[in-house]
Amino acid sequence: MTRAMHFNEAEYVRRQAMVRQSMTDRGIDLLIVSDPCNLYYLCGYDAWSFYVPQVLLLGHEGGPVWIGRAMDAAGAKITTRLPADDIRAYGDEYVQSATRHPVDFIIEEIRARGWGSARIGLEIGNYYLGARAYLAFADAFVPDQMVDASLLVNWVRSVKSPAELDYMRQAARIVEGAMQAAYDTIRPGVRECDAAAEIYRALIGGTSDYGGNYASSPPLMPSGDQVHTPHLSWTDQPYQAGAQVNLELVASRHRYHTPLGRSVLLGAPSPELRRLEAALCDGIEAALAFIRPGVTAAEIDAVWQEAAGKHGVRKAARCGYSIGIAYPPTFGEQTISIRPGDETEMRAGMTLHLMPAVWLGSESLVMTEPFIVTDQGAECLCRFPRRLAVIS
Amino acid sequence: MTRAMHFNEAEYVRRQAMVRQSMTDRGIDLLIVSDPCNLYYLCGYDAWSFYVPQVLLLGHEGGPVWIGRAMDAAGAKITTRLPADDIRAYGDEYVQSATRHPVDFIIEEIRARGWGSARIGLEIGNYYLGARAYLAFADAFVPDQMVDASLLVNWVRSVKSPAELDYMRQAARIVEGAMQAAYDTIRPGVRECDAAAEIYRALIGGTSDYGGNYASSPPLMPSGDQVHTPHLSWTDQPYQAGAQVNLELVASRHRYHTPLGRSVLLGAPSPELRRLEAALCDGIEAALAFIRPGVTAAEIDAVWQEAAGKHGVRKAARCGYSIGIAYPPTFGEQTISIRPGDETEMRAGMTLHLMPAVWLGSESLVMTEPFIVTDQGAECLCRFPRRLAVIS
Repeated sequence: MTRAMHFNEAEYVRRQAMVRQSMTDRGIDLLIVSDPCNLYYLCGYDAWSFYVPQVLLLGHEGGPVWIGRAMDAAGAKITTRLPADDIRAYGDEYVQSATRHPVDFIIEEIRARGWGSARIGLEIGNYYLGARAYLAFADAFVPDQMVDASLLVNWVRSVKSPAELDYMRQAARIVEGAMQAAYDTIRPGVRECDAAAEIYRALIGGTSDYGGNYASSPPLMPSGDQVHTPHLSWTDQPYQAGAQVNLELVASRHRYHTPLGRSVLLGAPSPELRRLEAALCDGIEAALAFIRPGVTAAEIDAVWQEAAGKHGVRKAARCGYSIGIAYPPTFGEQTISIRPGDETEMRAGMTLHLMPAVWLGSESLVMTEPFIVTDQGAECLCRFPRRLAVIS
Repeated sequence: MTRAMHFNEAEYVRRQAMVRQSMTDRGIDLLIVSDPCNLYYLCGYDAWSFYVPQVLLLGHEGGPVWIGRAMDAAGAKITTRLPADDIRAYGDEYVQSATRHPVDFIIEEIRARGWGSARIGLEIGNYYLGARAYLAFADAFVPDQMVDASLLVNWVRSVKSPAELDYMRQAARIVEGAMQAAYDTIRPGVRECDAAAEIYRALIGGTSDYGGNYASSPPLMPSGDQVHTPHLSWTDQPYQAGAQVNLELVASRHRYHTPLGRSVLLGAPSPELRRLEAALCDGIEAALAFIRPGVTAAEIDAVWQEAAGKHGVRKAARCGYSIGIAYPPTFGEQTISIRPGDETEMRAGMTLHLMPAVWLGSESLVMTEPFIVTDQGAECLCRFPRRLAVIS
């Protein structure tokens, strides 16, 4: 079978070396990687199989070991370069069983490979290490052996290589196309689900040069009297004249996610909404002009708040976060947040989503920019008009 | 704001009463519901917000209490009938913070409502109760207070009401349309991503009567030399003449999921593949004819295996599971499995997915039927030709 690898071997060697360095810094002998983003990052494994337990065992010597369900081993052979000995699979009798848990199999493998007394790092705060799996690990090892390795790999992921940035840029082209599909489709009388269908079509079909893939999150596009509820889904109702739609879209290219947010208004904007638009545009412009290696996430937030504040606008929630590889349920990397108190310094190669969606009294507006930190400053991933789209 | 409720109040009262009965049976005073499927089932809350901790507190008296992120409280007001006092929200300072965890807020609320010494049921084995959240709960309460309530609500969900079955039937119409879109699009020279785009469009646009929504899982449609890897995604490569595509699609209608699987072949089938087709058709027919209230999941498996075995075909993995409400990462209810050893008796109103996708040497074939158990037997949810689609 043809291998489906998205990076060369040197890239994986480099990633594993960086993670091992971080393991050394924290006194970890064996990292049990259970976040699907981190499996993908470290060995390329990419499949919709994270609804059953699967891990990558990373020690200081030898290649990482993939452990998953028997029917997924063939996928591991295609999407990774791991030798056959390092692809280990448990049988279907472990799946959703009352008497066996896949972690039992994983623990046996850990012991068989001589890691029974190792200092073990677990991704306790990441997605997909469930409470039951945690308890099984905790039962098998002594407490002193267990180290919280939450987000250890996520932090290594925060600075992207040139090859990773290429995929982020490709995803940017795809999400621009999807936003344009939204602009072209959303009209009074069109059902919300039909607009969502066209957006999905653009996100998945991609461009003539490369296709899209399923994203970590669906299009968010609340409208009408639900426009203030950011996470409800579309309905089957037609858009009404005068309605506003707050669009938060995200495209995936080889699991690298680039999001983009804009608002569409099917009518005439109020002066309040125009004020909000000016505040967001000024805030984004000021933040992007300020960003360069060495400034902190909190400082970016302060710059944004000051510029928007001149229009009487403040944002209570964070106004941005780190982005990159994603599987459901989120495309945030869960590391850097653009908000007060986050003292992370920007480094060239970081990618973030500046997303100061805000509410001002009864008005709301979504306007976001994903960007790359470069040696020169901030490079916007998308090129899409930064204004409220008025369709009437 | 208009409420967006998909069931009448009596349905929720009945569901809560069934869950409380099960709590009584297990000696649970307070159930902490963290699986988004179970939140939706018990109060109607439906939003893409489960990437942050959110729970429903269900005691024996008083309405359930929703706790989630501040920006999601408006969504809880629209999608549930909970009184304002029973919608409680934590601020954004709890989100992805190194110093605070939303579970701290939830524990305060539990104590404030007089449940500090209650026997507490936790969904330890369900999705979205992460290890970190579990540890915070375990730290706040004494071990004797904690009861494993994994799948408690899932089991109550296994028998559907007439209103729920209506949504399953609507999702069936949508998934039939998506399968037809696949049949109409998959041709030599068409890129896999463009076929996926048309499938998504059909899944989301739905029918002229009702729209679709995001499903728990993307279309699975491996083809070519990846046809044996069930969980890898589509590529940007064009289909080749002679290629086979194994399609597993699933549609969502108000979160009720109906799946459908079929194989498409862009060429002439081998005698082996025809034998596999006969085995699957005979196995499905025999199983469907056998199903009635009172027979067990294991017996259905045995009937399938016997009929398919006459063609020399066996399936090692389970050949079906319970279906209904779903969010990512899976549309299986994680309760009933059609496999040896599962002694669950069929009851009228149960919905399952008979999915004996099998491999025979180098050949594979997907052919599935979602069905409802009725007093009379099995009612297929879909009406879609049960054969290998040969397109040449």
